[in-house]
Amino acid sequence: MGKLRFEISVSLDGYVAGPNQTLEEPLGSGGEQLHEWVLATASWREQHGRSGGERNVDDEIAADGVRGVGAAIIGRRMFSGGEGPWEDDPNADAWWGDNPPFHYPVFILTHHAREPVVKEGGTTFTFVTDGIESALEQARAVAGDDDITVGGGASVGQQYLAAGLLDELRLHVVPVLLGGGVRLFEHHVGDAPAQLRRTRVVESPTGVVHVTYAVAR
Amino acid sequence: MGKLRFEISVSLDGYVAGPNQTLEEPLGSGGEQLHEWVLATASWREQHGRSGGERNVDDEIAADGVRGVGAAIIGRRMFSGGEGPWEDDPNADAWWGDNPPFHYPVFILTHHAREPVVKEGGTTFTFVTDGIESALEQARAVAGDDDITVGGGASVGQQYLAAGLLDELRLHVVPVLLGGGVRLFEHHVGDAPAQLRRTRVVESPTGVVHVTYAVAR
Repeated sequence: MGKLRFEISVSLDGYVAGPNQTLEEPLGSGGEQLHEWVLATASWREQHGRSGGERNVDDEIAADGVRGVGAAIIGRRMFSGGEGPWEDDPNADAWWGDNPPFHYPVFILTHHAREPVVKEGGTTFTFVTDGIESALEQARAVAGDDDITVGGGASVGQQYLAAGLLDELRLHVVPVLLGGGVRLFEHHVGDAPAQLRRTRVVESPTGVVHVTYAVAR
Repeated sequence: MGKLRFEISVSLDGYVAGPNQTLEEPLGSGGEQLHEWVLATASWREQHGRSGGERNVDDEIAADGVRGVGAAIIGRRMFSGGEGPWEDDPNADAWWGDNPPFHYPVFILTHHAREPVVKEGGTTFTFVTDGIESALEQARAVAGDDDITVGGGASVGQQYLAAGLLDELRLHVVPVLLGGGVRLFEHHVGDAPAQLRRTRVVESPTGVVHVTYAVAR
C-alpha cells in the first residue's frame, strides 16, 4: 500500500497563503512568493506542458513530488477557490483548463455533490462529499501501491494528520515572512499529537529548505 | 558593531511554548520537548556548571549560540514568568539562582521599574522600561563589537524584527507538533515584511533542523 503524503510550500512564519485571498489572487497578498521556486523548475514546466526551466536541487524536489503518485486529494478551495453550490461558482471548471497538470485521478473534498469530470491527459476529478476517510479509500482503490498526495489546502492536510492517516509531511520552507494569511497549522493537530521523524533535509540554491518528516503511526 | 540576533527553539507547527503555561510548567504542556536537544549538549551543561553531555552537531550549535555574545535582551515573562509589579511576583529573582548561566549583562524588557541586580559569574540584570530601542542601545553600550542575542520570548523577537532592528534569526525547528501554545510568529511582522536570506542549515542527529537566516536591512 502506498503512502499518504502531504506536500506544501510554507512561509517561514507558517503561512501557505497570504492575507486577502481573492479569485484574482488566490494565494493572497504575497503568497505567490511561496511557489517561485517550483515554478522555475524544469519538472514543473514539463508537467504543465512547457519547455525549459531550471535543472537544480529544486527541480529534483519538484520531480519527487509527482514521482510514484497515483492519486491526489485536494480541498474545494484549492480546486476552484469557491464555496457553496457549484452552479454559483464562477470557477467551477477549476484553474487548469482542458489538460490539467495532474495526469492522475484527483479527489476533491466538498460539501456539494457533483458528477465526476474527465479531463485530457489522464486527469479525472471526482467529488467526494462523505469525508476524508472516504476520499482516501477511493484514492487508494485507484492508486494501488502508488502513493497518494494531499495537495492542500492546509485544512485538508491538517484533517488527515489529526485523524492519524498521514504517513509523510513534505514541507518547502520559503525564506519569506507573509505576516498573515492562511496558516499551515491553524487547527488543533489531534488529541495525541503526532510523533514526527525528520527523514530528509535539502537546501536549495533559492534559499528554500525542503524538509521531509515521517509521521509515526 | 555586533549583530542583533534572535535565537529560539520552535516546534514544527510554530510554537515556542505549549498550551497552559504556569509557573510550575513555564514552557506549557509539552513545551519541554523543544529544549531536549540543547539540554543534552556538553556546551549547555558547561554553561550551567555541569559536566558531561553530548559532543555532537547540536553541541556545536549550542556553543555558537553563546560564542561572541556580549549581552542579551529578554522579556519579563522569560525572566520570571510573571507580570505586573515586582513585589507581587513570586519568581522575581528569576529561575537561575545565584549564578545564572548568562555570564554577561542581560537587559529585561518590563513595564515595571526596578534597580539592577548583580549576580555571580558576570551576569547582571538591568530592567528597561522605555522600550526595545532603549534596551538595544544599552546592550550595545556594554557589548561593543560583540553580538547581542534576543533570548525570547517570541513577542520580543517579533518586536525587534518588525522594527527592522534584527540582523539574524536562528531557529531550531524541533520535529514535534504542540497543537497550541505561544506562537513564534503570532503578531504582524511589520508593514514591510523583512526579506530573509537563508545562510545556514544544519541537520542534527536528534532530528532538529537548525536554520539561520540573515535579515536584509
